[in-house]
Amino acid sequence: MKADAIKIVGTGLIGTSLGLSLARHGITAGLSDQSKASLRLAIEYGAGEEFSKEPELVVVCVPPDNTADVVAQELAKHPSAIVTDTASVKSEIQARVGELAGDQSVRYIGSHPMAGREKGGPGSARGDLFFARPWVITPNEQSPAEAIELVKDLALQIGALPIVMSSAEHDRAVALVSHLPQLVSSLLAARLVDGEDSELNLTGQGLRDTSRIAASDPTLWLQILSQNASAISPLISKLKADLELIEKSFSDLSATGALAKIHSLLERGNEGISRIPGKHGGKLVNYQQLTIVIDDSPGALASLLTFIGEIGVNIEDLKLEHSPGAPIGLVEIQVEPSSAEQLAKQLTDNGWRIV
Amino acid sequence: MKADAIKIVGTGLIGTSLGLSLARHGITAGLSDQSKASLRLAIEYGAGEEFSKEPELVVVCVPPDNTADVVAQELAKHPSAIVTDTASVKSEIQARVGELAGDQSVRYIGSHPMAGREKGGPGSARGDLFFARPWVITPNEQSPAEAIELVKDLALQIGALPIVMSSAEHDRAVALVSHLPQLVSSLLAARLVDGEDSELNLTGQGLRDTSRIAASDPTLWLQILSQNASAISPLISKLKADLELIEKSFSDLSATGALAKIHSLLERGNEGISRIPGKHGGKLVNYQQLTIVIDDSPGALASLLTFIGEIGVNIEDLKLEHSPGAPIGLVEIQVEPSSAEQLAKQLTDNGWRIV
Repeated sequence: MKADAIKIVGTGLIGTSLGLSLARHGITAGLSDQSKASLRLAIEYGAGEEFSKEPELVVVCVPPDNTADVVAQELAKHPSAIVTDTASVKSEIQARVGELAGDQSVRYIGSHPMAGREKGGPGSARGDLFFARPWVITPNEQSPAEAIELVKDLALQIGALPIVMSSAEHDRAVALVSHLPQLVSSLLAARLVDGEDSELNLTGQGLRDTSRIAASDPTLWLQILSQNASAISPLISKLKADLELIEKSFSDLSATGALAKIHSLLERGNEGISRIPGKHGGKLVNYQQLTIVIDDSPGALASLLTFIGEIGVNIEDLKLEHSPGAPIGLVEIQVEPSSAEQLAKQLTDNGWRIV
Repeated sequence: MKADAIKIVGTGLIGTSLGLSLARHGITAGLSDQSKASLRLAIEYGAGEEFSKEPELVVVCVPPDNTADVVAQELAKHPSAIVTDTASVKSEIQARVGELAGDQSVRYIGSHPMAGREKGGPGSARGDLFFARPWVITPNEQSPAEAIELVKDLALQIGALPIVMSSAEHDRAVALVSHLPQLVSSLLAARLVDGEDSELNLTGQGLRDTSRIAASDPTLWLQILSQNASAISPLISKLKADLELIEKSFSDLSATGALAKIHSLLERGNEGISRIPGKHGGKLVNYQQLTIVIDDSPGALASLLTFIGEIGVNIEDLKLEHSPGAPIGLVEIQVEPSSAEQLAKQLTDNGWRIV
């Protein structure tokens, strides 16, 4: 079941990307934005045309703090349309829409496409932003089945993977897999502010990975985090309890049980990691890693991968690392253990340097 | 100044890798290990031969907890040799060697090659493990200049980048850039143990990156962390102070200043990230990111990169992402902003899907 006319409210990163995605599938969305400049930019990018036709589906793509108000306005403006949104927290918006729109709120179905970029704005928009990414849909018991289908089909049309759960389940999930990691990464990166340059020069891949998302936009994240306080709070308290045990252990390592507490944390970390689903939605496979030296020039990586492709080995993961001060790069690839040894031999035989 | 004869004590990941690195440069190290099986394996891999010739330089590559004892034994066994080690914490070992070896400890120069793998043992050894990685050398005021040079030249011979600093400076640096990230990553991953499968299914790249190093070996890390408690403790206390502010803010978001405290943390995270040196040892350059869709088959990535290489654009960073349940991959590349637009156009014109 496809919506006849789709209206997108808000032409930032998400709204413009959604318009571009629909355009690729021959659907011209009606666009609307408070900012005339942002609207014109999105239209020039090809994300749709200025809204005019009465919509069957409205997608509200505005910052989390404005979402409930705009959803309620759209429900009022378009009395027969289904309205959804794309905010990354759901329960608070759902409750607020209920307060603002009363009975009309039955036509609101929350959703959260789990895609984004560290940069925002229509200029960062991409027509495949949602491609192959989860798109969580959070109906409640009152939601009409056709309305849920309409949102599901929107996701499927642009290549996203719809997942239906309650808004409470969604918010608990993102508190754990998205909001807590953001806070932890920011807490760690905040410690670097006081570091000496000579200390930071020893930074390796571990710190880089752990702190990467601390580069996210503080204003957007403040809105996200503050709408999910009730799901985040208990996780922070548990984290703090673990941290206090560790702090106490480090303050007197000779005390009975001090080392056991640190060891237990490291072991629980191992256990937690094993819970993360791996590639292709399955459990993590133990791939074999090979690290190969290349020079840092256009085509160097390509010629390596062409060679590997010709052998017929599939690369399951790849990471590129540059060495400080050296004109070379290290390519870390993950391959099936069964093909690793033969690949390593063939690479070495053909003059590649394996690290 | 090159050492005439090098003895490597301990044929695990580091010792065997060091032997392999030296072998590549025509130097046959003398190997020694308490375990006959491990020693034989390292010799079969080509890391050197069984130790026999009186060494000029001894490199102790045993676990941190055994390092000081073994260094002292080697100083006694080889009264004219310089002895170094490879443990990742330095002050405690240096002090303990002083106690154990007295005047002879002047021949001990600590060092820490900043390379490793998540897997240990001689079977994981690589002949280029140290290539283009920092090799920290931690002499004290008594250290003879020739002895420092001998260790520096060992690092240079195998392509590592020697950096000289005091053991106290080193330990403070690794507490910040290595030990605190390990603890923070483990604290975060430990929270996943209680998560539901449906929650963990929404895991994205942010959590994966932030928690990656929580997969490290608990036994080895317990030794590392417990030898650096005095440098780690103040960092943990500062992290806890920040976490307490955040916990309080989330527990009552309506309180005056609650949001400002969360916002300030996110901003300090941004600031901390900006302190991390970027590629080629310089400050982080703002590269432009392009994400391209490929199918998940051997050669798909290679043909993309061949195309990019032929255009003459250098890829500064690359990340490969698989979509759960989809037979495609997303390739995120970072390129110079000046070449990004033209590259995107040429990719699109030639049928690549840019996300």
